[in-house]
Amino acid sequence: MIIEFERIVEIVSEIKKLKEEEGGIKQVYFIACGGSLGAFYSADHFLKTEAEDIKSYMINSNEFLHNTPKAFGKNSVVVVCSHGGDTPETVKSAKKAYEADAAVIGLTYTPGSPLTEYCHYVVGYRFRTDIGESWEYDKPLVPVTIAAEILHQTEGYDHYEQYVDGLKKIDGIVRKAQEQTAERAEVFAEKYKDEKMIYTMGSGAAYGSAYIQSICIFMEMQWINSACIHSGEYFHGPFEITDRNTVFLIQISEGSTRALDERALVFLKKYADRFEIVDAKELGISTIDASVVDYFNQTLFTAVYDIYNFRLAEVRQHPLSVRRYMWKVEY
Amino acid sequence: MIIEFERIVEIVSEIKKLKEEEGGIKQVYFIACGGSLGAFYSADHFLKTEAEDIKSYMINSNEFLHNTPKAFGKNSVVVVCSHGGDTPETVKSAKKAYEADAAVIGLTYTPGSPLTEYCHYVVGYRFRTDIGESWEYDKPLVPVTIAAEILHQTEGYDHYEQYVDGLKKIDGIVRKAQEQTAERAEVFAEKYKDEKMIYTMGSGAAYGSAYIQSICIFMEMQWINSACIHSGEYFHGPFEITDRNTVFLIQISEGSTRALDERALVFLKKYADRFEIVDAKELGISTIDASVVDYFNQTLFTAVYDIYNFRLAEVRQHPLSVRRYMWKVEY
Repeated sequence: MIIEFERIVEIVSEIKKLKEEEGGIKQVYFIACGGSLGAFYSADHFLKTEAEDIKSYMINSNEFLHNTPKAFGKNSVVVVCSHGGDTPETVKSAKKAYEADAAVIGLTYTPGSPLTEYCHYVVGYRFRTDIGESWEYDKPLVPVTIAAEILHQTEGYDHYEQYVDGLKKIDGIVRKAQEQTAERAEVFAEKYKDEKMIYTMGSGAAYGSAYIQSICIFMEMQWINSACIHSGEYFHGPFEITDRNTVFLIQISEGSTRALDERALVFLKKYADRFEIVDAKELGISTIDASVVDYFNQTLFTAVYDIYNFRLAEVRQHPLSVRRYMWKVEY
Repeated sequence: MIIEFERIVEIVSEIKKLKEEEGGIKQVYFIACGGSLGAFYSADHFLKTEAEDIKSYMINSNEFLHNTPKAFGKNSVVVVCSHGGDTPETVKSAKKAYEADAAVIGLTYTPGSPLTEYCHYVVGYRFRTDIGESWEYDKPLVPVTIAAEILHQTEGYDHYEQYVDGLKKIDGIVRKAQEQTAERAEVFAEKYKDEKMIYTMGSGAAYGSAYIQSICIFMEMQWINSACIHSGEYFHGPFEITDRNTVFLIQISEGSTRALDERALVFLKKYADRFEIVDAKELGISTIDASVVDYFNQTLFTAVYDIYNFRLAEVRQHPLSVRRYMWKVEY
């Protein structure tokens, strides 16, 4: 397994015991900024879909600080995430959660960072340096597994066994999918290297990977205008900008919302000429049980986008590390 | 008061009585598509912020149909919205809710439309023809008032009195703000009539009006590329596309998340040249009590955007009613 599953099981078990006398776990807050917030999408979606009673709320750190939900407190589990562990709003959010006696789980790549000071538990994930030709595709997998484990240990989760089985399979799937994508990533990079605007599209629990691709890769790391469109919303406004020139990167999830993505794709095939399809089913995700496959799409898409993004950055001679404002000016 | 407040009080009171024997109201689902979904933003945000126990979930109709939350059922209040009352996914969602013994409240401008067949209660709102130089600015006010009333009658809402006072004041504020905006809307339209891309920005309970402005006005009705950026997320990716040419329409909310919008504005003032500010405070919203003002921003912004949008459509000679796909082709 690619993530620290046993550790997550233990952490949740400890929190559950700790919170028992105080009325149990009633809310889970996923608090972060940008790509780290986007990495929570599947986790939040999981609880919104699967939980009977537990409330889930995914919120930007600064919004959480300024508009703290009334329910937040000792019955809350707070999951925070910051790669460097030093995003000021997220560190402050963790502190606020810690001081309110919420159970705080921190996701970071940076042990000993300021964030970890206010976390009862810290969980890591692998990064580029650990996995070679990829970035951080297990980053969304950790929080959704925390969500699944919380549900399993509290209300119960009917498909827990299938979920754990999926955890065992996903790394193999991802590796093959990355190989399978190598050539088309080259073609994509050459074809769209001069674009001024690229839309991303997705739905369901995997919408977060389209969001991250839009705001962190196209906008932040490549300075290409972008917007992330929900494929169910596409037909209620956004589709009017579709024409033979508009560029879309559309992800087709496997699972419950596949029909939404496929409907958008049918439209693109008719009225657009310039779109790239990333299809989780075609990329081999279906060996994971249908009851849980929704929650693995984001990890697969994230991993495959890495392949596209490295090629795009190379061809555009615009390294993914270049910034004009971030970490450079005051903001 | 501009909305049917007494009727909303009655509806909630009836639902509360009806659900009492079944364990009460446990979840509120706001289900719609596009602009009608965006109109729910403040309502969903209200419950996410103010409620202790009640769960709130705002979801695209087609996603709801394909990925129905497990908790959904007889303890749910479902609020659906469709202007024409004939959006297929939303009608089907209402039917699904009706058949699952949820209490269904329908928002529509079209009495007797297919949607109303599956609604236990129907609430209207005013539209352009009723209010002259505006569109539908009480559309977001109805659902947030339903949310406030539900909370008041169930868990209790500390600021209910201030909220009702706000309801009495908002129409006067809106009218003055629309007058105040008339001239700058002319300038905006002339200045940006040839733009290919306009970003919108906002935060908090009012984020929905930035979303609607982006997907329904710029994309759908003017065929201008657009994306809606959360002002708290701006600094964690999107701000890298900022330069002297990029165009932004930024809304500055009054209330808890004002600091987020102001921070983005400070950055724009330093690194961008082409942005339009719509500031709720400057437009006179502050006569509404600070404890509830968050929930009136969306109504004000929606009303003020109407003024901008009518001018923009005129100057661009691109009427807001023109479509290339919507209602015209199969999708």
